[in-house]
Amino acid sequence: MRKWTVLISSVAAASLCGVALLVATTAGAASDDQALLDKAKSLFKPLPDSSALENTALTPDRVALGKALFFETRVSSDGRQGCVSCHSPSYYGGDSLPLSMGVHGKVLPRNAPTVFNTSLLVAQHYGGNRASVEEQAVKALTSLVAYGNATYEQAEKKLALLGYQPWFDKAFAGDAKPLSAENWGKAIGAFERTLLTPAPFDRYLKGDSKALSAQAKQGLKTFIDTGCAGCHNGVTVGGQSFQKFGITQDYWLVTGSTEKEAFKGYDKGRFQDTKNEADAFMFKVSQLRNVAMTPPYFHDGSAATLSQAVRIMAQLQLGKQLSDTQVADIVSFLESLTGEVPADFAKAPILPVASH
Amino acid sequence: MRKWTVLISSVAAASLCGVALLVATTAGAASDDQALLDKAKSLFKPLPDSSALENTALTPDRVALGKALFFETRVSSDGRQGCVSCHSPSYYGGDSLPLSMGVHGKVLPRNAPTVFNTSLLVAQHYGGNRASVEEQAVKALTSLVAYGNATYEQAEKKLALLGYQPWFDKAFAGDAKPLSAENWGKAIGAFERTLLTPAPFDRYLKGDSKALSAQAKQGLKTFIDTGCAGCHNGVTVGGQSFQKFGITQDYWLVTGSTEKEAFKGYDKGRFQDTKNEADAFMFKVSQLRNVAMTPPYFHDGSAATLSQAVRIMAQLQLGKQLSDTQVADIVSFLESLTGEVPADFAKAPILPVASH
Repeated sequence: MRKWTVLISSVAAASLCGVALLVATTAGAASDDQALLDKAKSLFKPLPDSSALENTALTPDRVALGKALFFETRVSSDGRQGCVSCHSPSYYGGDSLPLSMGVHGKVLPRNAPTVFNTSLLVAQHYGGNRASVEEQAVKALTSLVAYGNATYEQAEKKLALLGYQPWFDKAFAGDAKPLSAENWGKAIGAFERTLLTPAPFDRYLKGDSKALSAQAKQGLKTFIDTGCAGCHNGVTVGGQSFQKFGITQDYWLVTGSTEKEAFKGYDKGRFQDTKNEADAFMFKVSQLRNVAMTPPYFHDGSAATLSQAVRIMAQLQLGKQLSDTQVADIVSFLESLTGEVPADFAKAPILPVASH
Repeated sequence: MRKWTVLISSVAAASLCGVALLVATTAGAASDDQALLDKAKSLFKPLPDSSALENTALTPDRVALGKALFFETRVSSDGRQGCVSCHSPSYYGGDSLPLSMGVHGKVLPRNAPTVFNTSLLVAQHYGGNRASVEEQAVKALTSLVAYGNATYEQAEKKLALLGYQPWFDKAFAGDAKPLSAENWGKAIGAFERTLLTPAPFDRYLKGDSKALSAQAKQGLKTFIDTGCAGCHNGVTVGGQSFQKFGITQDYWLVTGSTEKEAFKGYDKGRFQDTKNEADAFMFKVSQLRNVAMTPPYFHDGSAATLSQAVRIMAQLQLGKQLSDTQVADIVSFLESLTGEVPADFAKAPILPVASH
């Protein structure tokens, strides 16, 4: 009888011990999970929940006008260039090209980034020479390679002829001159500010640990541990600062960039605008939201795939060689930054026709 | 007493007479209305009610693939030219330009007609040198000014690299080679065959007399009486035959066309393809469905407004000078041919991205 008792006790003890070990392991994993989430919360921020329309400057009339103008191509000097030409819903707000194309088939010097969430970035363009989406839209009107108008007056005259006067009058009631290049910028900016794309990573940051797969979490950890989050952080996972592209080596030695006609050599980033040597090769850090949907990569579109881009960045910026597993994990994390194409953006507006 | 009786009888008789006159007038108007409807029914046909999908060749998989390919720009030699470039939902299936633009900013020799209902026309292109929407789509792939591919093989290779192999495998299961230029044409054709735009005029032809305003009915009558319906008839109100453009005079003397670089002179229509003098200046009669939404007009886009186009056609083709009222009435009738942009067409497809 005693023997049995001992045996049973041993079994019970062993079982209890096993349960305890299991609990400890689970508790350890849960605690690691919580630590990762806490770390992530300190580095990143979810997209604002509230619609940008809460901003009183972004009235529905301005957003609707901005949407029409975003898709409007007849204001350009060849009649075929609009914001939508380089920022299409079919390509997640980009154009899928290494380098974009402007009026009259001119190849632009840089890759078109997605328009999604771009209003939240520190500045616009790779060199940051546009302070806001509004300024970007206005200045594009007279850019030789974008819309190609000689003057703002010329663009305004086209808008009036196309029948947009009542749209501007309604959206900018009370302005001395409602139809103006400045209000073109305000309207397009209002529309662009609505183009936010919440993703699984936002749900994760708000505490839903299951929003990310185990591999995506491992990738997030690797992304942080490797140092990627040193620049790619904040609400847009990048896009909040400028950094030199090519810290360990000149970037073109690694990316395979070819010498650029547009820059009579390699693109020197902010230097192209400021002519200040301190700005040489300084570029705005790219936001990584929707990055899995917007190849090719870099300011010159020289990386065709996301894996390639991740590997090159680690080498060029951090001097690290990532393993295939590390790259795959980071890519899995980056995929959790993919949101939905905003439904209103995917629905083409019907644009005004000339009067009879 | 007798006097009163006479008086009352007279009043009663006069009243009765008035009622009778009113009845006669109403009956006359109703009979005119019915005569116009009967005449219209003999000249025109409503769009098919049934979805084109009833055709077993147009399976949902083919239509979905065709829609993606219609919006796909990366198959062209500059990466930015797709069917949608000249046939946009924002411009009622056209591009709003006098002359369209092809790859690398090349100006095309002719205006882009709307893609809506085009599958129902006698042939494709102004010169009718494409028998079907399928043939048009296939041949565009290697057209120097459209997609600019050197060979069909080159285009097929791009489609495979972009990730379309599984789409073709599904849509053309059982084919020895599902991903082919031929099936590119079949898929795009399937999608285009769904782009039908029923309009108020169809409801009218089916007996709903109130679907047209009084002015539109007057315009329909003028359209028929003037002779416009001699060519602009059938289900697409035109598009069913070829006619010489410029019967009473050379067209460019009236339209304001300028000499065309592309043709080393004026565009001679079918002659450009056949080199047969009998075809000189023969063009496909344009369909008039959605015409109010697709300025500018004619093969060279030389008429900016619909009123102008109506007036010029009456003069050039029928030797008639229309009054302002007649033009306004006809325009009112033509507006009854405006349907809705198909909802599925207005919703941009999200296209495949390169693999990681």
